[in-house]
Amino acid sequence: SSAATPIRATLFPGDGIGPEIAESVKQVFRTADVPIEWEEHYVGDQIDPRTQSFLTWESLESVRRNGVGLKGPMATPIGKGHRSLNLTLRKELNLYANVRPCYSLPGYKTRYDNVNLITIRENTEGEYSGLEHQVVRGVVESLKIITRQASLRVAEYAFHYAKTHGRERVSAIHKANIMQKTDGLFLKCCREVAEKYPEIKYEEVVIDNCCMMLVKNPALFDVLVMPNLYGDIISDLCAGLIGGLGLTPSCNIGEGGIALAEAVHGSAPDIAGKNLANPTALLLSAVTMLRHLKLHDKADRIQDAVLNTISEGKYRTADLGGSSSTTEFTNAICDHI
Amino acid sequence: SSAATPIRATLFPGDGIGPEIAESVKQVFRTADVPIEWEEHYVGDQIDPRTQSFLTWESLESVRRNGVGLKGPMATPIGKGHRSLNLTLRKELNLYANVRPCYSLPGYKTRYDNVNLITIRENTEGEYSGLEHQVVRGVVESLKIITRQASLRVAEYAFHYAKTHGRERVSAIHKANIMQKTDGLFLKCCREVAEKYPEIKYEEVVIDNCCMMLVKNPALFDVLVMPNLYGDIISDLCAGLIGGLGLTPSCNIGEGGIALAEAVHGSAPDIAGKNLANPTALLLSAVTMLRHLKLHDKADRIQDAVLNTISEGKYRTADLGGSSSTTEFTNAICDHI
Ligand SMILES: CC(C)[C@H](C(=O)O)[C@@H](O)C(=O)O
Ligand SMILES: CC(C)[C@H](C(=O)O)[C@@H](O)C(=O)O
Repeated sequence: SSAATPIRATLFPGDGIGPEIAESVKQVFRTADVPIEWEEHYVGDQIDPRTQSFLTWESLESVRRNGVGLKGPMATPIGKGHRSLNLTLRKELNLYANVRPCYSLPGYKTRYDNVNLITIRENTEGEYSGLEHQVVRGVVESLKIITRQASLRVAEYAFHYAKTHGRERVSAIHKANIMQKTDGLFLKCCREVAEKYPEIKYEEVVIDNCCMMLVKNPALFDVLVMPNLYGDIISDLCAGLIGGLGLTPSCNIGEGGIALAEAVHGSAPDIAGKNLANPTALLLSAVTMLRHLKLHDKADRIQDAVLNTISEGKYRTADLGGSSSTTEFTNAICDHI
Repeated sequence: SSAATPIRATLFPGDGIGPEIAESVKQVFRTADVPIEWEEHYVGDQIDPRTQSFLTWESLESVRRNGVGLKGPMATPIGKGHRSLNLTLRKELNLYANVRPCYSLPGYKTRYDNVNLITIRENTEGEYSGLEHQVVRGVVESLKIITRQASLRVAEYAFHYAKTHGRERVSAIHKANIMQKTDGLFLKCCREVAEKYPEIKYEEVVIDNCCMMLVKNPALFDVLVMPNLYGDIISDLCAGLIGGLGLTPSCNIGEGGIALAEAVHGSAPDIAGKNLANPTALLLSAVTMLRHLKLHDKADRIQDAVLNTISEGKYRTADLGGSSSTTEFTNAICDHI
């Protein structure tokens, strides 16, 4: 029914359960008539010298050309002399912000029923600099790097996100009472950006206190922005509040407006190929990609169908306590569209 | 009834609500006939040049001499040119391990009822090195330092603790997939120590995954050992699971067998002097001090009295949903002894 020229998007089905859950996304997108044409790329079985990783240069070029992509779980092959697939993607595509909406799924009970927050993680520097060395035998150091440029960039993204998504408050998470210079610079940048958004409330929360508040009452938070490692920790903590990484979408934002959505759970080799995997995280990640493309109607339809299917509870995969196959669960979602 | 020579212990009542909750500990100890004689020290109103902080040299000498102490909350005075009180204590007394038992209080309902774990935090190095500088304008770095000596020391403490406290498993928490050299060295040291304790199970858990597992099911963990910042984060997260810092004991272990127990909550200036403060964290911290002194009978009696008082629910302070004063709550505990 959509006659518009299709939008090309890169698809990395990934490893393990990746191809099955990617199949589920493709079926749901067809059913919802989403005007997307997938360009599929796989992780190679050889190191591409141009990327120093098993990701091919062509696959990265595809994301750069299309500007949008969706990625399943990738298992970094074991061995030496190559870079991790996730870190290669972040680095080569300059994916500077990792955005994770985290909300309680109606009808899927956890200890928390009031979660509705967004974690925005700086994705390029901080503790992930890769700069480490041995000073003398038995003494090693690693460098955490914070720059004004990357801090302003992610803060700007967070406030813009808050403003365009009807959010009220941004909390900057830090440990500037100990790391006064590095986290202090991060906070300084957040404050500068906050001044440009007087309609958005701004606060600063120390990371240890933030974790305590999150487990006591996650409703205290709205949008959280933070340096790389704190984002790694807090986004997984938040995922845990609503049921785990199998349920939480994630989207990486790069320079020039690139968006690479991804399921952040593992490739679950133990159940791969058995039609048992839960495609929810990849589906909801695909929804964030649609929102990035401003295809809000399609995004709403798919998100509602996924949430309603889980909420009704008749068709659920095993990880959610049900006994449906990936196909049955996907068919149920399509029936809701 | 105890005719033994009393053991001298240093007491820092601290600021804000500190003196009231310290009074509560003294009363409970008297009632339980604990053979302890307190040597009280206060935070000075001037910087002591020998400590570069408001803590006097004499007060540190007192802890060194006695080998044991109890500390209420201290509010670091604002201003420049002096060191934080907590960091001064850790540094001057070489308090290398922070131990926090974290267990659900019977009868006090939170979202979790199955918490029973111990976090053991390396307390002297890591991200708390204080080494930071600006590389060029807009680029700052901080150094995380991990040493073999401090890592072995805290790992040894953790395994010894597990063994002597009937614990089954030690989990080392890390991010060695990113910080291969620093966190890698920490893990290497943990593995070395683990080999000496074949009866204790050993596992390694990445910090982001650990936080997710903790909020999903804290019963998965037993004893956790980790570098400084991860310990800061995870011990507060765990406190949140059982109700917050007002309920969790903490004890710092130093070289030469020093033990400085402390309430890690704030000094709550808003309710100071109003007979409203909850002495639970300081009381349970005092219990860890008694255990360190192997006064297990006294420790058990006091711990049971505190837990039973909270569990019965007739006398609770306002933070626990009751309306008792500090005095009424303390009297109720004494009645249980
Ligand atoms: C696999 C690991 C390197 C990665 C990270 O630490 O960033 C992961 O935890 C994530 O959050 O994507
Ligand atoms: C106050 C702060 C410096 C301290 C720390 O980070 O260690 C506190 O959070 C703690 O855990 O004792």
